[in-house]
Parts: sequence; structure tokens; C-alpha cells
Amino acid sequence: MNEFEIIKTYFYPLAKKFPGALSLLDDAALLDIDPDHQMVITNDILTAGVHFFENDPADLVARKSIRVNLSDLAAMGAEPLVYLLALSLPNTVDDAWLELFSNGLKRDQINYGISLIGGDTSSTPGPTSISITMLGRIRVNKALKKSNAKLGDDIWVSGNIGDAGVALKIIKGEVNVIDDKSKNYLFKRLHLPEPRLELGNNLIEIANSATDISDGLANDLNNICQASGFGAVVQGDSIPISELVSTLIKQTKHLKMSHIISGGDDYELVFTAPPEYTKNINTLSKKMGLKISKIGSIVEGKTIRIIDKIGHDLPLETEGYQHF
Amino acid sequence: MNEFEIIKTYFYPLAKKFPGALSLLDDAALLDIDPDHQMVITNDILTAGVHFFENDPADLVARKSIRVNLSDLAAMGAEPLVYLLALSLPNTVDDAWLELFSNGLKRDQINYGISLIGGDTSSTPGPTSISITMLGRIRVNKALKKSNAKLGDDIWVSGNIGDAGVALKIIKGEVNVIDDKSKNYLFKRLHLPEPRLELGNNLIEIANSATDISDGLANDLNNICQASGFGAVVQGDSIPISELVSTLIKQTKHLKMSHIISGGDDYELVFTAPPEYTKNINTLSKKMGLKISKIGSIVEGKTIRIIDKIGHDLPLETEGYQHF
Repeated sequence: MNEFEIIKTYFYPLAKKFPGALSLLDDAALLDIDPDHQMVITNDILTAGVHFFENDPADLVARKSIRVNLSDLAAMGAEPLVYLLALSLPNTVDDAWLELFSNGLKRDQINYGISLIGGDTSSTPGPTSISITMLGRIRVNKALKKSNAKLGDDIWVSGNIGDAGVALKIIKGEVNVIDDKSKNYLFKRLHLPEPRLELGNNLIEIANSATDISDGLANDLNNICQASGFGAVVQGDSIPISELVSTLIKQTKHLKMSHIISGGDDYELVFTAPPEYTKNINTLSKKMGLKISKIGSIVEGKTIRIIDKIGHDLPLETEGYQHF
Repeated sequence: MNEFEIIKTYFYPLAKKFPGALSLLDDAALLDIDPDHQMVITNDILTAGVHFFENDPADLVARKSIRVNLSDLAAMGAEPLVYLLALSLPNTVDDAWLELFSNGLKRDQINYGISLIGGDTSSTPGPTSISITMLGRIRVNKALKKSNAKLGDDIWVSGNIGDAGVALKIIKGEVNVIDDKSKNYLFKRLHLPEPRLELGNNLIEIANSATDISDGLANDLNNICQASGFGAVVQGDSIPISELVSTLIKQTKHLKMSHIISGGDDYELVFTAPPEYTKNINTLSKKMGLKISKIGSIVEGKTIRIIDKIGHDLPLETEGYQHF
């Protein structure tokens, strides 16, 4: 049973009566706090050996833990406020690790204007595990959801897709990159994703639906389609990739566009908006200095198709980021 | 370095500027949500092999995970609302475990009028770990804190102390209990602590300071003293213990009052209040049908003393529940 099925079978029944739980299908939960605002609350676990490598630098692990949670808030259009840290530590963790880890948290607290407010620490006979609960705020009924895509919406994606997935393939020895500059670019995209908070906030009055790409573009767009009851057609050529990844695909026999689409950890936003907002989105892109690419449309149906120039379907890797 | 030192050294600096973090010293954090209310937020990790046994019934593990978090809210006087569940699962966990676990959550959701609203699940090469973030609410500036004990306050404790600690000693083979009725009583106290939510709520206008006893009466009272800048004198004879534990102390050479005072997992409340509230507290005790015992006083100084009838200090076990 994969993570999605476990949640649906065992935990959805515990949340279905609470509207703000959004059926446990969205990036964060909503809690009414005053007549004008809702709290937006999300939680992500990062476990050594599953989400990061035990010997990854502790400051980068800390910052990624913060950022993947911020990315969930960004996907809802929310403003981050505070977080709680639940930290499970094996006895191999020493002062140097803790100092580096807390320095990483500190740095991103400053970057994003947030504060630690609580949490728990526990010893564990298992691997290091970091579970952060991030709390943010949004004006009432303004949160972007996965479930609100409309028929005929354009599908947009921020930044470039696939950099982080390729970085992971380099670490695994599946892709070769020799020059340090390229490696640094890709590793930074893996270790220090940029939560698209400003974009999410700007999309509140523009987008019908949104989510962040944590499990691969295909998986996360599929989540929007499932939640909204529609299908999607994506032009494979429109999916934004970096020049470096484009070159690597040409050079590397085993690296295909299907890996780019199905790989995870991009932490870009994928969102849908009515076609009449095209100009607004292009203006926003220029204003923010952030690439935002139109990649397809929401259509009738239940599946997502990614097609090449002559309309043939590109195959999708379904491996994604299944944790079970 | 123990848990307290890790928090003080590495995490307190990340929280010190945010008043609602309460210097990471209290049972929960406070977040202003409207002019009349604050959100009260707490997080506790339960890890197999550390906080529970891998083969403990999953429904009891689920319910204890809920209840230790509710106990933190009770200690602040807050009303619980919703929770997030971060669940790390080894591949040995099967459907039967998940079904029992979710049934446990469901049962205590009904008991306490709360709902699951979000969270995360992850696979882990380590032990099962449950990290719950519980959110509650309280009227502004009414939260009970550890740091507000006043000189001359009486020290009070709810229920009986030591039942859960003795249950743990039975499991470890350090104490023998033969009859099932006694075992069941003690095991229930260990596995299903009763969060003192109603008491906490009633103490808002009575107590100066409060905390829940999760690390042993001596440790948690010491936390109140440290946070408030005072000492405490406790009459050992006044510490409430069940008849069963009283009998076991007499029968068991290795079981002493010092273990009762220093053992953890009681999840009763210890609080301080001005002597003039004695009558109110006794009335409250009768009304609630809950034993509430006066056990000592807040005094000048920095240490807590637990004394016998003739004023001699009882020794304290300092083992407590140090996780590191």
C-alpha cells in the first residue's frame, strides 16, 4: 500500500468531517481564526536514508526541511508565520551536527521572516528524522486549492523542471556531470529549493488551482486533475527545462524527458488559470524575474496526457516518490 | 547532552525573539489569532523502543499519542481543536496495525471532540514514530505557564502519582504484581493517561503556574521552580499515591518513594496557587470527582526539597526521562 492509499484508507475517515482538512488531499490544512483570516498549516517529514542522505551537510538538511514546508504554504498562497520542529536524533548525532543544523534553521528563519515556536526532541534507535509543522496565514476563502481547476484552464509552471531530479541521478551515479559549475547549479536546486511564496501570493486573484511539485510534475498535476475531476493535456515541448538539463538529455542515453516529468523535488508551482489571465501572468513573470511557462490545458477526462509535437503520447514513469 | 541542554543551546536562540514561544520552556506555544484568543500549539514525538514498545497494541499507542499532546494543552488551560499526524512507518507495519492505530485515533477524536486535519507519512528504515502537533485555543493572556509561580503559593497535584512508573517497572520485571485487576489498573494508567483538560480549564482563574507531569513530579515541579525563579518544599507524605502503589512500596525492597517522585508518564497536573484559593480548589475537586492534593509550598531558593515527617530530605532519583 503506498502513501496515498494509506492516507485514503485509514486517515481520510478521521478528517472528512472537518472542512479545513480539505480531505487530506491538499498541500496544507485551513483553520478559521478570525472573520478575515484562516490559518494555513502543513507538516512534512524528512528522514535520513529516505529524503536525504545521512552525510548531507546538516545546514542544508535544515534549510530544505524549512523550505519544503514553505513550498506547501506557497502553493496555497499563504504567508508563513512560525513553525514547530520535531527532531528524532540517533546517538551518532554530535554537537557539530546540531550546531550546523541550527545554523541552517537560523539562516532560513531570517530569509523568510519566520520563527521557531515549539516542538519536541527525541532519541531514536533509527535514522535522523525532521518533522516540521509550519503555520501561515491567508485571507479567508482565498487559499489556492488543488480541487478548483476549471475546464479550459491553462496549465502553468514556474521555473525549470527536472534540475533536482537530475542532481539525484548524479549522486546515484546514473548521470555524469563533470564541471563543478554545473554540478553546483543542480545540487543547489536539489538541496535548496526556492519556495515560491511571492508567486503563490500573487496567484491568489489569478489561479483557479495550484500545488507545489514535490513528487514530480506528472504526479502533482495528476493530483490537481483528480481533485478537480478533469484531465489534462500537456505539450511536452513546453515543459521548461534548464539548458544544462536539455544538454544532458541529449548526451545521456538513459536520461529521458519522461524522467524529468516524473522526477520529484522541484518545488516549483504548477497552477491552472483561465486563458484570459495570460497577459497578467506574463506581466507577473516579468515583474518577478521568474520564468512562468504555459504548458497545457485542463480538459474533459480523468487522465493526463503529455504529447510531443505530432500529438503522440510521451510515456510517463510512474515511480515518482512513492514512500512505501 | 540531554534534551533540555540541546534545546537550550541550539534551539532557544531560534525562538527567543518570539514571545509566544515562551522560550521553549513551556508545555505549548502561543500564537495571537484574534483580539480575544490565542492559539495554543504543542508537539510530542512517540518513538517505538523509546516511548513505547514495538509490540504495544497500536490502538493504545495511537490514543496515548493523542493524550500526551492533550495533556500539554490541559496544562495551559486550553481547549483542544485539531491535530496533524506525522507518521514514520517501517516496512514491518501492516494493514492490521494501521487499522488498529486509526481506530485508536478515531476513538479518542470522539472522546475529546477533535479532528485530524493534516500531516505526513513517510517510510523509515528505523522504528515506528508518531509525531502529533495539537492545536487548541484559549482566551488571550489566560494561558497557564510554568514561569508564573509566586512566593508562598501552595503546590497542588491532581490524581495519583507513580501508577504509570510502577507499571513500567512491572513490564521491566523490576516489580511483581500478580493479580490481573491490579495489573490492569496500572497498565491503563500507563497506556491511557487521562488528560486533565477540564481541570486545566477550571484552573485558569485560580492557578499562578501549572505543568503536566510527563517526566516525573520532581522534574516537572523543578521546571516550574526554574522558570519562576523560586524553590519548593514538598511534604513527601502529602504526595498522593494509590493504595496499590502504597502496598507495593511496602512489599518491594527496590521500590521506594523516590522512584514514585522521579518516575514519569503520570500526565497529572502539578500547579501552584495562592493559599487563599484552598477552599476553591477543594470545592473544584469535589465538583469534578477528582482528587487534588496540596503537597507543599513555593519558597525562596533555587532547589526543590522533598521532606519526610521529621523534616529530613528524601533522596531524589535524577534519572527521570532523559532521552539522550
